[in-house]
Amino acid sequence: MSRQLHFNLFLHDTGHHEASWRLPGSDPHSNLSLEAHQHLARVAEDAKFDSVFLADSPVLWSDPGRRPAGKLEPTLLLAALAVSTRHIGLIATASTSYNEPFNLARRFASLDHLSRGRAGWNIVTTAGDAAARNFGLDDQPLHRTRYERADEFLEVSTKLWDSWADDAIVADKPAGVHAVSERVHPIEHRGEHFRVDGALNVPRSPQAYPLLVQAGSSEDGREFAAKWAEAIFTAQPTLAESQEFYADIKRRAVAAGRDPDHVVVLPGIVPVIGSTEAEARELDAELDRLIAPQYAVATLAHTLRVDAERLKLDEPLPADLPSEDEIEGAKSRRTLIVDWARRDNLTVRQLIGKLGGGRGHRTFAGTPVQVADTIQHYFENGAADGFNIMPAVLPSGIEAFAAEVVPILQSRGLFRTEYTGTTLREHYGLPRPANRFAPEGALA
Amino acid sequence: MSRQLHFNLFLHDTGHHEASWRLPGSDPHSNLSLEAHQHLARVAEDAKFDSVFLADSPVLWSDPGRRPAGKLEPTLLLAALAVSTRHIGLIATASTSYNEPFNLARRFASLDHLSRGRAGWNIVTTAGDAAARNFGLDDQPLHRTRYERADEFLEVSTKLWDSWADDAIVADKPAGVHAVSERVHPIEHRGEHFRVDGALNVPRSPQAYPLLVQAGSSEDGREFAAKWAEAIFTAQPTLAESQEFYADIKRRAVAAGRDPDHVVVLPGIVPVIGSTEAEARELDAELDRLIAPQYAVATLAHTLRVDAERLKLDEPLPADLPSEDEIEGAKSRRTLIVDWARRDNLTVRQLIGKLGGGRGHRTFAGTPVQVADTIQHYFENGAADGFNIMPAVLPSGIEAFAAEVVPILQSRGLFRTEYTGTTLREHYGLPRPANRFAPEGALA
Repeated sequence: MSRQLHFNLFLHDTGHHEASWRLPGSDPHSNLSLEAHQHLARVAEDAKFDSVFLADSPVLWSDPGRRPAGKLEPTLLLAALAVSTRHIGLIATASTSYNEPFNLARRFASLDHLSRGRAGWNIVTTAGDAAARNFGLDDQPLHRTRYERADEFLEVSTKLWDSWADDAIVADKPAGVHAVSERVHPIEHRGEHFRVDGALNVPRSPQAYPLLVQAGSSEDGREFAAKWAEAIFTAQPTLAESQEFYADIKRRAVAAGRDPDHVVVLPGIVPVIGSTEAEARELDAELDRLIAPQYAVATLAHTLRVDAERLKLDEPLPADLPSEDEIEGAKSRRTLIVDWARRDNLTVRQLIGKLGGGRGHRTFAGTPVQVADTIQHYFENGAADGFNIMPAVLPSGIEAFAAEVVPILQSRGLFRTEYTGTTLREHYGLPRPANRFAPEGALA
Repeated sequence: MSRQLHFNLFLHDTGHHEASWRLPGSDPHSNLSLEAHQHLARVAEDAKFDSVFLADSPVLWSDPGRRPAGKLEPTLLLAALAVSTRHIGLIATASTSYNEPFNLARRFASLDHLSRGRAGWNIVTTAGDAAARNFGLDDQPLHRTRYERADEFLEVSTKLWDSWADDAIVADKPAGVHAVSERVHPIEHRGEHFRVDGALNVPRSPQAYPLLVQAGSSEDGREFAAKWAEAIFTAQPTLAESQEFYADIKRRAVAAGRDPDHVVVLPGIVPVIGSTEAEARELDAELDRLIAPQYAVATLAHTLRVDAERLKLDEPLPADLPSEDEIEGAKSRRTLIVDWARRDNLTVRQLIGKLGGGRGHRTFAGTPVQVADTIQHYFENGAADGFNIMPAVLPSGIEAFAAEVVPILQSRGLFRTEYTGTTLREHYGLPRPANRFAPEGALA
């Protein structure tokens, strides 16, 4: 079979555009609605998407006036969606800075059991002092420290997921032996950040590990991704930047001793679909008109670490912004925004419009054929293995994409027409991890 | 309406008897099966039970040979069951010693949203050094320290659940205001164990707080329960002990300034139902014959903090056991076991049989009428507001209880024939908590 696209639907209540909840047809309570999420997941599953995904941060991260700010905890919401779907992968974001590995490894192993092998973990280190202040700290740990902790967190988690051999459970009723104790391994981890004795209290799950996903694009983030990630979400506003990122990640994966095909690169795109290009552009423009600038300026000021008063709506960004090295937050995001504004000579108002729509991701506004053409062009020119689909408006954006763009790509042989595997890793063409403690027990 | 019984089903894979998995009809993989849990929850819901409940500890707590030792994480499993049920309450155990309040408060608020007001939290402090060693510690914190942390954990959690007023979300599309910022309150908690700025990133849920449940019966545990708990699970082997406990808890609740009717006491019972009393006793005896003594002796030795070699199967317990004051574990459980063994002059083998069946809970073996009579007798004689039903064998034990015991109690007017409320608190006849930050916004 020729190489095929992979699609993830990035779930985001009324859509990724911050003003999407204000459209007449939007349900402004969908962020707390199981039924709304069930609908989105089913539309994506009917379109044979690889996965759905929920972002997350353990903090109330935006002004609650601006848009739906409350978010159901992703692992719980996806456990509920596991019951409502049969095939599609379920990827939850969770923080390595504000969780304990035993608890989190257990939740992902549980999700993998509940979904019969469809769990994925988007690994984040969680930028921002506000989150730190929900967990006993005055300020966030240093960027480098967060990534060191994340690395050890993954070491502990993968040991825990290996702590039960695949053949540990024998369920021998006559002998009265449920599992062979010698096939269940304490991990006795002692490290800089963690001491965890183990074993995990969840037996090895269908995928062994959840699919490991990552999205940070800083230097530390890319190194971490090259070592651990099997799928990568990334924000790249142009084809050239996507190609540079794609090549860089594959190169780093090889340098880390991995098969570059086992690191799937999924740039985010914001498809805005119209029956004509003009119709698509009009929807895009209507959304931008609905952005309330007071909230957007505050967020931009926070990201760039400047006082909000210094950002004038109809002027460019100030010249003397703090550099990436001076901030401990989402470094790559800050740099992406600043470079973009300067390159395109944007005013603050124009920048806010672009960020409100795609938050740094590429917006494709056009007809279904135009959107499909662009996707194919990226896919065939070293820029993507697939895409993280981030509709500006939901559910209409994914309904349109599923109904109008997916069939075009299927007819071109670029996307599956049926699921051929049962696990999330199988959807992405990735191998099941072997077991470090009991390789003979691995099924793969 | 006259006072009515409340029933909780304590979910426990193949049943509460440790040898239940060895019966020919038992599914030894049910501990990891969504479908098995769905079936149990549906049987209980069809019988109009108030709730189902999952115990938990963040540790592999028994030898994996002995019985199914892996457990899906309860909040995720119950999120899945929220989709599969419509009325029944969903109570998950979670530890205050090995979680962060922001994360856990959020998960319970999310479960309450997903289930439309059916979430409950069984609050535990988690005894044992083994659990501590999964979280960076050499030994567990002192019993008293664990309860002090639990108390502050509840203070933080309830503040977080109050941090959004009931009327915070206005979803005013024309004005571009999703929630009124002034109705979302940072909590700015600073205490001995926690610093949490808040607000929570989940808006106030249908029940405001999950139902607060507690099960520790030590002096610290009872004081904690009197202050916080709305429902109490307890192990009391005799009627007299149930009566003593019931009166003590109600007295303490009054002393804490609470309405004693708002603390529902639910002793655990292990119903073993036969068409004749002899048939019930034979099932009970068959189960005891299936206990593998090597595992049971090890567990008993651990609970009593003695070397396993000192426990001789056909002799009584040693005279010189460590006192309750000398141990930091599950204090009340140790004392219950020792008192029981000495009062009834049990050998270690006999004691193991009783513990393997009910683990200190009262076993009722008999016909449906005998079981219903005993339940009614407890209920009408100051020993219980309802029961935590712990069938020795599942699913057959709850199927039999639902089919044969519940109709008798319904015909006597002692148990509901239809759900009259929609939330878990309404099932138990408890009020919805008011909001400390915005009492005018409370719906109750």
